[in-house]
Amino acid sequence: MKKFIVTPWEVSGDIDYDKLIKEFGTEKITDKLLKRIEKHTGELHWLLRRKIFFSHRDMNWILDNYEKKNKFFLYTGRAPSGLTHLGHLVPWIFAQWLQEKFNVEMWFQIPDDEKFLFKPKLTLEDTKHYAYDNILDIIALGFDPKKTKIFLDTEYAKVMYPLALEISKKITLSTARAVFGFKNEMNIGAIFYTSMQSVPAILPSVLKKKNIPCLIPHAIDQDAHFRVSRDVLPKLGYYKPAAIHCRFLSGLSGPHGKMSSSDPKDINTIFATDSAKTVEHKIKKYAFSGGQPTIKEHKEKGGNPDVDVSYQYLTFFEPSDKKLKKIYEDYKSGAILTSELKGICIETINKFLKEHQKKRELAKKNIEKFMLRA
Amino acid sequence: MKKFIVTPWEVSGDIDYDKLIKEFGTEKITDKLLKRIEKHTGELHWLLRRKIFFSHRDMNWILDNYEKKNKFFLYTGRAPSGLTHLGHLVPWIFAQWLQEKFNVEMWFQIPDDEKFLFKPKLTLEDTKHYAYDNILDIIALGFDPKKTKIFLDTEYAKVMYPLALEISKKITLSTARAVFGFKNEMNIGAIFYTSMQSVPAILPSVLKKKNIPCLIPHAIDQDAHFRVSRDVLPKLGYYKPAAIHCRFLSGLSGPHGKMSSSDPKDINTIFATDSAKTVEHKIKKYAFSGGQPTIKEHKEKGGNPDVDVSYQYLTFFEPSDKKLKKIYEDYKSGAILTSELKGICIETINKFLKEHQKKRELAKKNIEKFMLRA
Repeated sequence: MKKFIVTPWEVSGDIDYDKLIKEFGTEKITDKLLKRIEKHTGELHWLLRRKIFFSHRDMNWILDNYEKKNKFFLYTGRAPSGLTHLGHLVPWIFAQWLQEKFNVEMWFQIPDDEKFLFKPKLTLEDTKHYAYDNILDIIALGFDPKKTKIFLDTEYAKVMYPLALEISKKITLSTARAVFGFKNEMNIGAIFYTSMQSVPAILPSVLKKKNIPCLIPHAIDQDAHFRVSRDVLPKLGYYKPAAIHCRFLSGLSGPHGKMSSSDPKDINTIFATDSAKTVEHKIKKYAFSGGQPTIKEHKEKGGNPDVDVSYQYLTFFEPSDKKLKKIYEDYKSGAILTSELKGICIETINKFLKEHQKKRELAKKNIEKFMLRA
Repeated sequence: MKKFIVTPWEVSGDIDYDKLIKEFGTEKITDKLLKRIEKHTGELHWLLRRKIFFSHRDMNWILDNYEKKNKFFLYTGRAPSGLTHLGHLVPWIFAQWLQEKFNVEMWFQIPDDEKFLFKPKLTLEDTKHYAYDNILDIIALGFDPKKTKIFLDTEYAKVMYPLALEISKKITLSTARAVFGFKNEMNIGAIFYTSMQSVPAILPSVLKKKNIPCLIPHAIDQDAHFRVSRDVLPKLGYYKPAAIHCRFLSGLSGPHGKMSSSDPKDINTIFATDSAKTVEHKIKKYAFSGGQPTIKEHKEKGGNPDVDVSYQYLTFFEPSDKKLKKIYEDYKSGAILTSELKGICIETINKFLKEHQKKRELAKKNIEKFMLRA
């Protein structure tokens, strides 16, 4: 297994998720915890059943509070550096489900400042452009406009900057360097930025003048920021935010790492706005296969679904466990070929994207229903 | 001569202003430059005649542009950590004169974020409270409400934060550490802050969408920030801000260093809101004297006006050169005693403060005429 790296700015290598849990000091999602969640939600989302959401911090505390009628709110984000791709949608799909099942608010941060500060070539105009494009994908997933607030860090700075100041005053340069590994060449905006990422974890508490538990569904690479939040926010009198973490959807080229919208080559990424034809072309041509070199050999030995990207995508986007199990077995036995597996994947993704793109069009009229302005 | 320190956060020791000019790489204000200024202003402010404003950067460039009908704007600031004292008023009195004589705009920054970040005990409520108190003193000095904009960093963050981001992206941690000497214990907000202090130097240019020369009258201790501004702003397509620097008004206890409003002991500081009685008491009791130990000795040997704090204050607040010269000579010869010199100082300061406090009361109704809101 190659060495792997998981930071807010780089995800690479063969990720060992059990090792990550140890390194980051998070907790594994156990069957016991799943049962406790199911008691409230009536069913388990497939992203939970399949342990794609695999790790957490303080989920039991969130449920303790929920059971005492002390509701939490959800916070997640999208740093806008490009078009939305399938990987981005995963935590949001789950977050929308959490909102619906627990009937809670979602505070959705768009840190346009982050991407501007960390990507040398992006301007604030670029990040704002992507922000409003990405917001369409967020809205399309079905968040409740009455219970969802979306905000750009730059546009909402009148409220966020003073709160970020309060947070930043409690974070030393030492801490920031230790957590994020900043070098001397790093710009001072980027060093400050983590303060802005902590703000939404207290924002509803500040605005409503009462302490409200916060649950952050997010991909595990953002954990460093929230380790800082969990250290600092109690010093300001707020709860530590809880979190629930998902694995990465890989790029087309291989079962490891993370799909990236900044990749200059489109060949690794399926965008939320790709046409059915483009999706078909990309998966047929680029999706890494777990099949054998020849059809004959494949039928004899069977394929390896565990490294097959098309199968992996189905674990993220095919709701039916039964269907998924059959595909797994058929591919493993050699009963279905790679081309057939790719066909199933294309159909599933395109069915999802067709619906998504329809809702995305409708979202264009509804943006202001979601935006938090100051 | 003791070692001296002049940074935005510490001023101490016997300051050698000629040495500062060399260390900071600024230029001395020459008689030739004064003549050039006088050509436009018709007269020279006593703070210029007496070289209390002693140093500058690019004043000739400012005048070149002015003569080509390319007007500059003024930018100065007040970091609100306490009540306004006489030392604060010095650059503002001069800035108001510049505004009047050159008929230019003044953009007045109140960096409440700075004082919050650098003073462990101050809250953002404290700095805001002082901000609005200090603003009364600013307005009282006679700035033109039609040509003056005052803004708090936190309140105006919607506009300032995105501009600070642009600036911060061009400042590495290395640079910030080299210029300001930040240690590992420094908080990350304080490290970011210099980006906010650069913003007003481009703010009118950004809002009016044209490049406008900027002149910053300020006490020399803030030079570090503007060295950074002058390095970074041209990279963003703006002019380097020019500056004109004044010496410090000393505290009551001695002719060196800087009057401080954060000093826990009031005995070193005359506040803009001190009553005539308080001023009299403080000067009589605490003002460091250049006189001789006994009246007899004083009449024989004369006093030393160059180290006498009351005389120093008169150089800042007595407009008449003739009157000042006579006081100097009479004190030096022993013709007037320390008690008499103190009496003259008390009278001059109280005359000024009486007028100031009257205008300060009137200012309470006019704050909104000056505030820039977003």
